[in-house]
Amino acid sequence: MSKAIFFHAGCPVCVSVEAQFVGALDPSRYQVEVVHLGQDASRLAEAERYGVKSVPALVMDGQTFHINFGAALSDLK
Amino acid sequence: MSKAIFFHAGCPVCVSVEAQFVGALDPSRYQVEVVHLGQDASRLAEAERYGVKSVPALVMDGQTFHINFGAALSDLK
Repeated sequence: MSKAIFFHAGCPVCVSVEAQFVGALDPSRYQVEVVHLGQDASRLAEAERYGVKSVPALVMDGQTFHINFGAALSDLK
Repeated sequence: MSKAIFFHAGCPVCVSVEAQFVGALDPSRYQVEVVHLGQDASRLAEAERYGVKSVPALVMDGQTFHINFGAALSDLK
């Protein structure tokens, strides 16, 4: 089981990506943690370490994927 | 079973997204067609109809997701 982290900020783009995209991952292989950076600013530094520049973003096996564009990380600080 | 289409152009970003991301979709729910727009320009119009602006992009259930950035669609024409 691999762990994936979905970073978002509750924006409309984030919500649609979470519903459609994160929900399509194989649940037998991926356990997805959903982190709302607007509500949990303590995780911002962690997101930056993963190279997250904007949300929504999905980190899987150390690789960071930016999916569409909701908000820049710098706007969440 | 839903059908998803992954549009790419063989770029390094495309290859990593295909390997990591498309490979993580639940195979019991999604059948993924992989379309190389550099090799099959006849599918460009279809990609545009789905709102694809750049590759790699994944179309699922009529929604289009741009994942990172490899190349603009206009550069493939």
